[in-house]
Amino acid sequence: MANFKLTLMYDGTNYHGWQWQENAVAVENVVKTAVEKTVGEEVTINGCGRTDGGVHAQMYVCNFYSNSTIPQEKMPIAINTKLPLDIRITDCKIVDDSFNARFCALYKTYRYSIFNSKIDSPFFNRFAWHYRGQLDLEKMREAAQLIKGKRDFKTFMATGSTKIDTVRTVTEIEIKQNGEIIEIEVSADGFLYNMVRIIAGTLLHVGCGKIKVADIPDIIEKKDRKRAGVTAPPQGLALINVVYGE
Amino acid sequence: MANFKLTLMYDGTNYHGWQWQENAVAVENVVKTAVEKTVGEEVTINGCGRTDGGVHAQMYVCNFYSNSTIPQEKMPIAINTKLPLDIRITDCKIVDDSFNARFCALYKTYRYSIFNSKIDSPFFNRFAWHYRGQLDLEKMREAAQLIKGKRDFKTFMATGSTKIDTVRTVTEIEIKQNGEIIEIEVSADGFLYNMVRIIAGTLLHVGCGKIKVADIPDIIEKKDRKRAGVTAPPQGLALINVVYGE
Repeated sequence: MANFKLTLMYDGTNYHGWQWQENAVAVENVVKTAVEKTVGEEVTINGCGRTDGGVHAQMYVCNFYSNSTIPQEKMPIAINTKLPLDIRITDCKIVDDSFNARFCALYKTYRYSIFNSKIDSPFFNRFAWHYRGQLDLEKMREAAQLIKGKRDFKTFMATGSTKIDTVRTVTEIEIKQNGEIIEIEVSADGFLYNMVRIIAGTLLHVGCGKIKVADIPDIIEKKDRKRAGVTAPPQGLALINVVYGE
Repeated sequence: MANFKLTLMYDGTNYHGWQWQENAVAVENVVKTAVEKTVGEEVTINGCGRTDGGVHAQMYVCNFYSNSTIPQEKMPIAINTKLPLDIRITDCKIVDDSFNARFCALYKTYRYSIFNSKIDSPFFNRFAWHYRGQLDLEKMREAAQLIKGKRDFKTFMATGSTKIDTVRTVTEIEIKQNGEIIEIEVSADGFLYNMVRIIAGTLLHVGCGKIKVADIPDIIEKKDRKRAGVTAPPQGLALINVVYGE
């Protein structure tokens, strides 16, 4: 029995998120079926985390245990022939039995993309949030500096989430501009439900002047979801990196 | 009666090309309906050229005559509310009555995108041709230099096309690399049926060694479609620029 670590990417547009669902098609359902057809036995897939419906992954990691004798380097192509084109396995490695894609992850990076243009684009509608107005990137960067750090992120957690420990360490929030595309990259040791989308919505409200940079510390302090900005829509979000200790 | 010049972009994945069709949905059908709903009268749309089914446009130009009093700067938003998200009007200008999007075009540029990677990507499947093997870009550039110029392009015309005058002037063929994306940009005063896709397929065959650079002049000379490379698939092609005299 070996422990297979899979790296994959997916366009989440047509899926109800990563996590297996009984009555809907999630990415995990499709990957599990493809892996089982490939290795010829039932497997349990351990994903590195949940992603919401419509959210993408440039890099997602999962692992499964199997008696398969398919060599690790042949595994991606073997599984890919059984997957739809919007999910691709990019790498497979046999790892130590103790490796678990979720619990061993040290930190993850999500990228939130905003398409900032007067008119939206057919080429970015699936992968970015369209925003028409002007955005002050310097103010957004100032606000990002106030958000990052080890702190209670309850303000940036979706209402209704029952998580009790809401302290996380956001190691970096970078805001990049490439023409009409603005990318907000958030790295953390863990994320609360909708956390990146609420941070992105809050930073956009800072950029357009609805929220003042100076109010950010108080917004965090109050731990009240209503004080933060809107929850940015799912299609702009992508998991782009998962880091493990070597 | 004014002559409205529209600039637009579209993701061609779901359309049977630009040109109006009786029994299928082409981009022109959808644009014509949206324009007619906006201006409240029947119009004739003059497109700058045909594009094949599944081919995209980052920049497409058409014109129509109308009695509408909607100011030109309001026209894009007015029409866009009546269009699906995969087609967007980006600009509208009232131009001289003599302007015709097709006949006044001096030259056009198409971009053919190849995703050159061991494993294909969910994010490029709609917009690029996936090629797994190694490509020698220098050889492709040498071949491109031999193809460009004013000459008879019959070798690069789809079999079955009845065009008699097959002389065109290809002013530039540029091959750019951006990570795993290889872009072939072809500018010409006019294009034969499938010309860019056959040039792209031929250059790919040069890049992977199936066709020798030294054989290119003879391949052009023979005017025999069978001597050229494959017709590259439509999803990699996009019209990116149309230039008019001022």
